Formats: sequence, C-alpha cells, structure tokens
Amino acid sequence: MGGLPETMLAIDPACPGGPEVLVPVERPVPRPGPRELLVRVAAAGVNRPDLMQRQGHYPPPPGTTSILGLELAGEVVALGEGAESALIGQPVCALVAGGAYAEYAVVPAGQCLPVPDAITMVEAAAIPETLFTVWTNLFERAYAVEGDTVLVHGGTSGIGTMAILLGGLFGLEVIVTVGSDAKAARALEIGAAHAINYREQDFVEEVKRITGGRGVAAVLDMIGGDYFPRNLACLADEGRHVSIASQRGNMAEFRIFDVMRRRLTLTGSTLRGRSVEFKSLVADELCRTVWPHVREGRLKPVIDTTFPLAEAAAAHARLEEGTHVGKVVLTVG
Amino acid sequence: MGGLPETMLAIDPACPGGPEVLVPVERPVPRPGPRELLVRVAAAGVNRPDLMQRQGHYPPPPGTTSILGLELAGEVVALGEGAESALIGQPVCALVAGGAYAEYAVVPAGQCLPVPDAITMVEAAAIPETLFTVWTNLFERAYAVEGDTVLVHGGTSGIGTMAILLGGLFGLEVIVTVGSDAKAARALEIGAAHAINYREQDFVEEVKRITGGRGVAAVLDMIGGDYFPRNLACLADEGRHVSIASQRGNMAEFRIFDVMRRRLTLTGSTLRGRSVEFKSLVADELCRTVWPHVREGRLKPVIDTTFPLAEAAAAHARLEEGTHVGKVVLTVG
Repeated sequence: MGGLPETMLAIDPACPGGPEVLVPVERPVPRPGPRELLVRVAAAGVNRPDLMQRQGHYPPPPGTTSILGLELAGEVVALGEGAESALIGQPVCALVAGGAYAEYAVVPAGQCLPVPDAITMVEAAAIPETLFTVWTNLFERAYAVEGDTVLVHGGTSGIGTMAILLGGLFGLEVIVTVGSDAKAARALEIGAAHAINYREQDFVEEVKRITGGRGVAAVLDMIGGDYFPRNLACLADEGRHVSIASQRGNMAEFRIFDVMRRRLTLTGSTLRGRSVEFKSLVADELCRTVWPHVREGRLKPVIDTTFPLAEAAAAHARLEEGTHVGKVVLTVG
Repeated sequence: MGGLPETMLAIDPACPGGPEVLVPVERPVPRPGPRELLVRVAAAGVNRPDLMQRQGHYPPPPGTTSILGLELAGEVVALGEGAESALIGQPVCALVAGGAYAEYAVVPAGQCLPVPDAITMVEAAAIPETLFTVWTNLFERAYAVEGDTVLVHGGTSGIGTMAILLGGLFGLEVIVTVGSDAKAARALEIGAAHAINYREQDFVEEVKRITGGRGVAAVLDMIGGDYFPRNLACLADEGRHVSIASQRGNMAEFRIFDVMRRRLTLTGSTLRGRSVEFKSLVADELCRTVWPHVREGRLKPVIDTTFPLAEAAAAHARLEEGTHVGKVVLTVG
C-alpha cells in the first residue's frame, strides 16, 4: 500500500436524517482483504437505497462499511491477497455492498467489470446497480426473452432507463409508466415502446389496449401496495411478477384461483445482501452477455446529473425531488 | 363403429346436489373426432374436482361433456380420423376433461398412456389425474429436484400419495401433513420421510425442526386460506409455493419484502382447462420419465376402495367422509 494516503474523504453520516447529514468526513483508507481490490474512486452512482440508508431505514448488511454507496468506477491501486496483479492500474466499475461515496473503496475482485474506452468513468459508475438488478430480476427471475412485452414502472428512473436499454438490446418490448408527459417523451426517446403517464391514464387499461387484451409477459415492480393487484391485472397467462422494492406498501394480496387459472408466478429479490459468490457469478455472466454491448458503445446509461462528492446532499435532494431522468452520479477527486 | 351399442350408462346428473344425484342414466355412446379414441371404460378414478362439479361449483370447460370423471382406463374400441390404427384393442389409461364415469368415453389420443402388465385396470385408472397434477406442479412449476425436501398437505389423499411415490422415485424427501395418527402411519408406510398430524402439532414448527431451521424447497398446496402464510413460513430461501386448489379460502396475503428477501416464488396452475396440445406434451414427457417405473412395477398408485359405476354415490360419500387413504376408483362393466 506504498504511496497511498492513510486517510480519505467519505460520506459516512453519524446519524440518520435529511440530505444535510451527507457531509464529507475523514476516514481511514480501507485495506483490501483476500481476493479484494482497492479502487481509487472516480465516480459513484447514487441509488434509491442510499436515500433509505441515509434515513436509517436500510442498514448495511453485517460486516459492511457504513459509508454510503453501492456502485463505483475508478482505478485499481492496490491488491488483496490472491487478487490478480494484472489488475493494478486498470479502470474498473463494481457493484459494492457499501463504501462507494469515498475517495477509496474496497471491492471484491469478482464483482468488478472492466471499463472500456467507449464509456466514461461517470457512465461506468452509473451501470452496476441497475444492470445487476434488472438482469437478475427481469431476465433471470422473470425470464423475459426476446419477443416478450414487459411492464416496468418508473420508466425514467435509473432502473427504468436501464430496463429500456437492455430491453432494446435483447428484443423486449418495454412498456413503462411515468409521472409526466415530459418524462413519457424522454422514455420514448430512450427506447421504450410505450410510455404511460399514470397521472392521466389508467395503466391497466392502457397495457390491455397496447397488448390487444393479452397482457404482458412480466412486470418489474418497485411500487407494491395498491399497484400489486393492478400489476397482476396487466399480466398475460403464464405472466411473471417480480418485486424489487415496495415504495407504496409492503402487503400484497391475491386470489389463489386467479394465480392458478392464469398460471402466474410472483417472486422478487434483493441484491445487496447476496453473497460475493453470487454477485461474482452475475458479473461473469454480464461480462459475457451485456459487456460486449458496452464495449461496442451500444449500451450507455442515461445520466441525469453529476455532483462532486462534497455535494452528495444536493445529489440526494435531486433524487428525492423526483424530476431526474436516468442516473445521478457523484464525481470524486 | 360397427358392433358398438348406440347407448351406454353414464353418471351425468341433471342438477347439482349431494352424492344421491349420481345415478346411472342412458346416454348416446360418444363418437371420436379427429385424433381421438373411443375407449370401453374398465375403471374411472374419482377426484375431488368431481365432487365440486357434482355440487355445481366446477362446471366443465366449454365443449366438454357434462358426464363426470377426469381419468379412466380401458380398451380402445374405435378410432377417430387420423388416430393410429395399431391402438385398436390396446389397454390405455388417459386424462380426460370429463366423461370418464361411463361405459364408453372419448379421449384425445395424445393424452393416453399404455397400460402395462405390471398394473391392473383399476390401478391404471387411478394414475392420470394425480400424476399429471403432481408432475406439472411439483416437478415443473416448483422444479423440485433430487435432494430437495418438500412439503405436501393431505398426505394420504390421491395427490398426497402420488407425491410421496414420485418423491421416492425421484429423490425427494417428502414431508406430509395428515389428520390422524393412523394416517400418519400409513403415509410413512407409503414412503413419506415425515408425517405431521396437523391436529396435534403445528406443522410450521415441525417442518422447521425436521429441516434444522432451513425450511423446505417447495410446498404443494391445495388448502390455501390460513395455510398460505404458514406455508410461506415453511419455505427455505429460494423456496417455491405451488397452489393447486384452495379448499380453505381463496385469498392469500404476503409481505412483499419477505418474498424479496427470501427470494420466494409463488405460483400455481389448473389442469383441466389446458389444451389437448399441452396435456399431450405432458403425456409424452411422462411416458419417458415416469412410465418406465410403472412398466417395471415400481410405481403403483395407492388404492383405497373400488365401487361399481352404479354406486358412484357411495364413492363420492367415501371421499367426502375423508377417511380414505389413496384413490377411490369406479369399476365399469
């Protein structure tokens, strides 16, 4: 670890609160353990779970740093035991269980992906969380395949825009819901097949109209609550409903015979608490399936705004305000 | 159709009611359509949906005869257009959408399986409904695989005993619930790994104890209602819950975050309304996977009692009484 500083700036609030608790503080530069890398962070993506963690509603998994941040891009500057030495100096992006809002972060080597020339560090930092989430939920748990029509709420969110982009690369027809006509226009520009302004139209009726009454093969849902029965009403026979959050309520109710008769599948997952082994397997798979598109410049995340690390409070406020389209990213150093 | 009578006896109640409505009546012998066979019925299995249909709660799908009965065994006596002539005279058993409680029945050729010497016609008639149901739900929708521990309610029912027998052949550890110690003893004799008397023990606690706290890979449920949350509590991470009926209530409620955190999958299906194409595909698959075990005498359904067709009322009363173990079968002719 020669040449590296002992301390760094990081966002690691002492107590829960509003965006104002996000002030840079001094922390020791972490040390990589076996099969881990130390990365000098260039950029870190901001995600909705970060807001929940800041508010005290989403504590980091046991053993994970309390420094915020679930994804980053930067340069590998030190190696833990057993990490491949060729990685030193390489630009990587990574999914992490915490610690990305900082000048340095430790990442499991298996959770890294190389940053190709086709994308910037800001773009690279904006990819992992939504890519891992959409891939493992929409393509794996909901096994969406070429030709499927799918419904994704929050069409201009980080998740929503990634779902649209991946849908375009893998042959899905993506219907999204959004909260304004301006966002609908942006979602269509990004590649959504249809964008429903839920404030003006009933999305169940619109989905039925768009699909000629048949319904969609899958719903990727982060809303829950009263959306749950409405989502089920959007599903075609054999349809899959995948929950990745429950912003409007945690209880879901359904008629068993309706699920039987239409052979629906209801499932969901979380990503953060999964093992390094699992996340590394997903990274390997993404490297084969999605990364060629990144390398060739065919997949670039939609970036809303960037803020310096010291203005993390403003980044969170931007996400909370809800007018963003795509990803909010912190730049470091 | 030379040599065949014009009319036959069948159970085809004019109006819903108790078992007493099940009296043999005269009906025309049906004529096989394209790719259908006419079977002289030797035996017909009795299933719980037959009771519901008799009560007026489970009308036959459109285009299906109102004669009761979802499975049969017998001899092929006439062929519809395009049916293979080598089938004439062959003993077959079949899944049907209706019409099995009769002297003759029409069956789609694709839904037939040959009756090998190792089993009787009564045994053959007792197989299709539970085999198709357990196979498509426990092995396909819940993708139970060798080494999995699964929970099946109604361990001494037709479905329960078939699940135990298939579990034994395909390497599952089957835990069942039953309503008496006598039934528990029978379930263990048939091959269940554990039998929980739900009247004396809390099945959730017992499942946790048996699995060392881990839970089961899958639950095959026909109970619903208040069993639904208790079933979820029995599931291991990544567990699958498959509904095939909802005898105690049709509404199911769950916490979205619980499904996400444990990555549960909730699904279900019905069999009767599926297409001939689907049922034929399942029959083909069963012919490859399960039928070798039937042929070699390793899979014989558990038979509770047989009744002549004219005593169908007594057969239904037997099933309603709930003291049966295994299948109730009608013998014909």
